[in-house]
Amino acid sequence: MQRILSTELPMHPGEQVTIAGWLHRRRILKQVAFLIVRDAAGLAQVVVTDPATRAEIEAISEESVIEVTAKVSVNAAAPAGVELISPRVRVQSAVSVPLPLELHRPELTATLPTQLDHAALALRHPTRSRAVRVAAAATEGFRSALAAQRFVEIHTPKIVASATESGANVFALDYFGRPGYLAQSPQFYKQMMVGVFERVFEVGPVFRAEPHDTGRHLAQYTSLDAELGFITDHRDVMAVLTSALAGMAAAVEPWAALETPSEIPAVHFTEALKIAGAPEDEPDLAPAHERAVGAWAKEKHGSEFVFVTGYPMAKRPFYTHPDPADPRYSNGFDLLFRGMELVTGGQRLHRYEDYVTALDGDVEPYAGYLDAFRYGMPRHGGFAIGLERFVARLLEARNVREVTAFPRDLHRIAP
Amino acid sequence: MQRILSTELPMHPGEQVTIAGWLHRRRILKQVAFLIVRDAAGLAQVVVTDPATRAEIEAISEESVIEVTAKVSVNAAAPAGVELISPRVRVQSAVSVPLPLELHRPELTATLPTQLDHAALALRHPTRSRAVRVAAAATEGFRSALAAQRFVEIHTPKIVASATESGANVFALDYFGRPGYLAQSPQFYKQMMVGVFERVFEVGPVFRAEPHDTGRHLAQYTSLDAELGFITDHRDVMAVLTSALAGMAAAVEPWAALETPSEIPAVHFTEALKIAGAPEDEPDLAPAHERAVGAWAKEKHGSEFVFVTGYPMAKRPFYTHPDPADPRYSNGFDLLFRGMELVTGGQRLHRYEDYVTALDGDVEPYAGYLDAFRYGMPRHGGFAIGLERFVARLLEARNVREVTAFPRDLHRIAP
Repeated sequence: MQRILSTELPMHPGEQVTIAGWLHRRRILKQVAFLIVRDAAGLAQVVVTDPATRAEIEAISEESVIEVTAKVSVNAAAPAGVELISPRVRVQSAVSVPLPLELHRPELTATLPTQLDHAALALRHPTRSRAVRVAAAATEGFRSALAAQRFVEIHTPKIVASATESGANVFALDYFGRPGYLAQSPQFYKQMMVGVFERVFEVGPVFRAEPHDTGRHLAQYTSLDAELGFITDHRDVMAVLTSALAGMAAAVEPWAALETPSEIPAVHFTEALKIAGAPEDEPDLAPAHERAVGAWAKEKHGSEFVFVTGYPMAKRPFYTHPDPADPRYSNGFDLLFRGMELVTGGQRLHRYEDYVTALDGDVEPYAGYLDAFRYGMPRHGGFAIGLERFVARLLEARNVREVTAFPRDLHRIAP
Repeated sequence: MQRILSTELPMHPGEQVTIAGWLHRRRILKQVAFLIVRDAAGLAQVVVTDPATRAEIEAISEESVIEVTAKVSVNAAAPAGVELISPRVRVQSAVSVPLPLELHRPELTATLPTQLDHAALALRHPTRSRAVRVAAAATEGFRSALAAQRFVEIHTPKIVASATESGANVFALDYFGRPGYLAQSPQFYKQMMVGVFERVFEVGPVFRAEPHDTGRHLAQYTSLDAELGFITDHRDVMAVLTSALAGMAAAVEPWAALETPSEIPAVHFTEALKIAGAPEDEPDLAPAHERAVGAWAKEKHGSEFVFVTGYPMAKRPFYTHPDPADPRYSNGFDLLFRGMELVTGGQRLHRYEDYVTALDGDVEPYAGYLDAFRYGMPRHGGFAIGLERFVARLLEARNVREVTAFPRDLHRIAP
């Protein structure tokens, strides 16, 4: 089948061509029928007057897959200034049942659960497919920005032996008769690989058995992870993250405008509490506090992004490096995007003795990981961006499920 | 810390610079000590004559992480024509234990299990790190080749509701009190997404609870998946695969030479049996048969790659499209690389009725997947490349674990 795309039609006026796609819309009038055919590139209008062809298309429903061989006719009133006339239609797949969703309206009117139940169909709607395209572009922007700075891509195990990294809930599985767990992050592995390549990144799934049923939690999400060695402190990590975000913003530009400042404003945790009007002994920022700090950054600095640095050590995982000037606080940061936590990062411990202390000597479950530190590791740090959260905030989706092709949560494991 | 890389030293003759890295090798002579410092880019030689500095480096072992501030001295006898003299050394991490592996020899002499037990250290050896770099380059080559042909990247669920795709063994897990399984492939999801974007790819982990303890099986591996719509038959899929392999070969070129012919030779399954001298009623190719067909392709066509097409339907999964000319055989193929199966692919069924027939009416476990076909799908097909197998064959590793950073198998779940 020699086929051209709908967007290529204006380059073939007067020619006989073949297009192929989904029967997006069909209007059958008395003398004439209009078909709108949708392909990956766009829409094309087909005018049917021949009675035999008309009978054929009357027999199939919208979303049937058809090939149309026809003549390209210039018509200023048609989409893109051309339409197809005198068509011959061949059916690849005939749809013979009613659709549970209407795809041809500007918005999907079905509820989110209905959309997710019928994901294979709902994702064909531009509001849903756009989010997947934006995720793909952002991922590529992330990788290119880091690859240009000597980062090497890695692929790490998603099945691990201990459920011990950060205290988040994990999924347990039967690993050839032994207990195994789904990895909550590539944290340990990316740190180990800093010992090999100095700078590494990974794009991959992470798993959280989160009992939270909220608009921002998923049981599986895509984590954009990076880790780098030979830093001075967490500020070097923040600089690399800033460049990665710039790469992502540039890559999503065809779909959504996003400005990333060359320097993202940063406030210390204690300052953030004041901005949010929170009690000064709060150990963490609640969502409402994050919104307040995000609003402050927008108003004061004109920035959609803001770093909060120096989170209390008490609330950070054991591998977190303390602030040398005040060890109650950490060299760890969060990045808020439009008032919501998007990235967690920071400097990590790099000396074996510091790990032994941080773990209270309970090193056995971490033996393979701690090997890296026992055998020499530089000062290092890194970060993890939640891809779906990035896309949701960017596209102003209220629920992260709206931008996830096949979300997994407390209640949903299919399709 | 303003640091330059070891490979940048020749650009700074006579200057004072700082390098940083691992103490790769230390030779302490009577009057002088030589340090070899390894960073991500290469090696640098440091000459120590000052007694205080000598005492400092005597106190630490190889693989300690150090910063060296020194003068760049031109010396034709030194590696890269320069060495560092009059150094000041600062220690970031001191190693004080003996190393379980010797990293400075051309080959790792430790057994593979010892290397894997101490992966964080063993991966620092160039023979091991090279494989990870090659995997990263191949992955990028795969993605670029497909992105240039309108393929959209997707991220799909790794936790699924049914253990039903291909009959391979799956890992079971507890999903919020319900049974869940780790996905053996993104097969169903990439097909569904053909209905959205026509052409998609995914790079991600897949899981097989393989009871095989061989040099070519892993419990987790990285699958390079692609799927495309509006094909005529499996030959369009083979053409895209050929272009993806060309992209991968170009990307790995700095580490390993690989020629991919612009057209890869193809033999029908029945022909492949004859070449291998196998009985004509064999339903599949055994590893020895694959080796024979690989040798034939090399001898007859000068090609390291060979397609075997038309595998019997009996041995292919239910979504396989039969050969219209002889429905005992499929429009499915394998690609052999140096005599081993590297890729499986083919044309898929695209009509809902054909799925109902193929599943003997047992459609309930597949409802969300079959939605795609019920609501219109084009003729389509795809393939999956096993990344670790590709790297292993390319680098002539006998065991796929030699090229996998942290392999998972029947016996191994850590580190």
